[in-house]
Amino acid sequence: MTDTSPVVTPTTPGRATIADVARVSGVSTTTVSHVLTGKRPVAAATRDRVQAAVSQLHYRPNHVARNLRVGSSQMIAVVVPDITNPFYAQLTRGLADALGSDYGTWVCNTDGSAGRERQLVGDVLARGADGLVMASVEHDSAGATVPTRYDTPVVCLGESIDHPLVDRVIAADGEASRSAVEHLVSRGARRVAMISGPASQGGSRVAGYQEALLEAGLRVPKFLTVHGDWTRAGGRAALHRLMRSAHPPDAVFCANDLMAIGALDAARELDLTLPADLRLIGFDDIEAASLVSPALTTIANPAYETGWSAGKLVLDRLQGRHSGSRRTVVLPCRLIVRETS
Amino acid sequence: MTDTSPVVTPTTPGRATIADVARVSGVSTTTVSHVLTGKRPVAAATRDRVQAAVSQLHYRPNHVARNLRVGSSQMIAVVVPDITNPFYAQLTRGLADALGSDYGTWVCNTDGSAGRERQLVGDVLARGADGLVMASVEHDSAGATVPTRYDTPVVCLGESIDHPLVDRVIAADGEASRSAVEHLVSRGARRVAMISGPASQGGSRVAGYQEALLEAGLRVPKFLTVHGDWTRAGGRAALHRLMRSAHPPDAVFCANDLMAIGALDAARELDLTLPADLRLIGFDDIEAASLVSPALTTIANPAYETGWSAGKLVLDRLQGRHSGSRRTVVLPCRLIVRETS
Repeated sequence: MTDTSPVVTPTTPGRATIADVARVSGVSTTTVSHVLTGKRPVAAATRDRVQAAVSQLHYRPNHVARNLRVGSSQMIAVVVPDITNPFYAQLTRGLADALGSDYGTWVCNTDGSAGRERQLVGDVLARGADGLVMASVEHDSAGATVPTRYDTPVVCLGESIDHPLVDRVIAADGEASRSAVEHLVSRGARRVAMISGPASQGGSRVAGYQEALLEAGLRVPKFLTVHGDWTRAGGRAALHRLMRSAHPPDAVFCANDLMAIGALDAARELDLTLPADLRLIGFDDIEAASLVSPALTTIANPAYETGWSAGKLVLDRLQGRHSGSRRTVVLPCRLIVRETS
Repeated sequence: MTDTSPVVTPTTPGRATIADVARVSGVSTTTVSHVLTGKRPVAAATRDRVQAAVSQLHYRPNHVARNLRVGSSQMIAVVVPDITNPFYAQLTRGLADALGSDYGTWVCNTDGSAGRERQLVGDVLARGADGLVMASVEHDSAGATVPTRYDTPVVCLGESIDHPLVDRVIAADGEASRSAVEHLVSRGARRVAMISGPASQGGSRVAGYQEALLEAGLRVPKFLTVHGDWTRAGGRAALHRLMRSAHPPDAVFCANDLMAIGALDAARELDLTLPADLRLIGFDDIEAASLVSPALTTIANPAYETGWSAGKLVLDRLQGRHSGSRRTVVLPCRLIVRETS
């Protein structure tokens, strides 16, 4: 077959430049650049004005032109705490699949160190990575280490980075937590406890738990929420504490699977039969969740889908399908009902 | 401080060239090139002569010069079946740690497809990867897809690639299997069965099992070795089969942890108490091995160390610390005694 359609030159609409952004926001192009690159501090009010102008004008840094420059490495870097954590391995696989053969996947491990993260991001940009997926950013340390060089597309996980050109992928773990607790209530649980993470972490999971109980007209007494430390030992200790109370729970929602597996240990020690004596739900769906006995009801984090979405967001910018202001992709988490609920 | 030491030009010993290799092996440089690149078939006898000459002359392709050329990507590619398999995630982490900040780690997933592997290797070389770690090669398909462009260092896992310039990292799983069975015998087991992989795979594990029994003066009846398919369901079915026999085993060595966890399922169904009624050992030390109950005795694959060693072998060639003929690193596997043995 011969393609006989005429050659059509696509019409490019007049595109906003950095000068347009400066004019609309009433600042210099240097200031716009400082906001976009994050290299210099800019007053919050000015920053807001610039970000509003970027959104309004659909300002789009020239990624496609950048790609045509010599020096593109055809690599997308993914910065993770540790690739041996199955969540990040799944995420990296999703990213690689989304990128296909267009871009290679460059894995960087921070071990949760902000200093190491900063160094890695510097290396990656200096060596010409075409895009960056930040899966390592802590909520607290975000501002400090996030690369916002506006000519390299950046995608971050969660809501840790607030920048008009940094796309975001968010897992709806609050909604998932609510549906997990609704599931426990629908099976007859009336005194639902939660083993959460440390006080400063995983707030949306705790909020989902509380919302579900309030909507069901159940009480949410403070002593039914116990802080754990994400470990198996912490989960075991937390369940022992809960079961010693004068009014022990008939169901427990754990903020991760390792703590739920620790709670299973404690339940065995206390001769509790699951789910008859106690219903239990974890979070993450790690491999062991289906392998322990009884098999753990849990919530699957959309790790693969997160990586896939991040890859698509980066490709959209690199290949000119999206320009300008930030997009946010919210992914659902699935409840996986097994034997403990 | 000022460095006042005189500038010393290192003396380079006369280095063998491809012409020297051709002369010593009595063939043309084109034939040497065919042997080294693998691009054209060469008669086995000729190939052996060329490989002997490469070893004898310590022939070293000019990696360091290559590195100085424009176009080095400063990336090492690691080709794995699937990064979400924890073994390959650990391996990739070990590789990244060995490479440090000198080179980035480029992850490629083949899903076990020889066609996809060939395509990825082609992409990776075309885009200027500085080295290649082949962790995906099947024993059967090895010859077909292995890149042996002699100017890019290649490291492979196991003994699948036989090429004078391809370094190898091998896990001593036969020795580990022997020590696992010795451990079972030392605890009193006399009828040790094995749940192996499919007949064509994991031969060194079966050999280690048989050696240990023979050395202990125990019989190795054929019906005590049952082929599984690496899955949990396969392990469960295999244990049921073994326990139905007229002379059931008092211990079982499984060629991987998933089959051992399936055997645990069957043991529970048969009301067997471990280790009193049956001793059980797996292989791999997956995360779930320590999380199931009773916790599984198993053998830890040196996944991280394998990646680390592969990285060091590649760096040695890229940074001129090793030249010429192939090196083989053999890594031990550790027996991890938990509750099932």
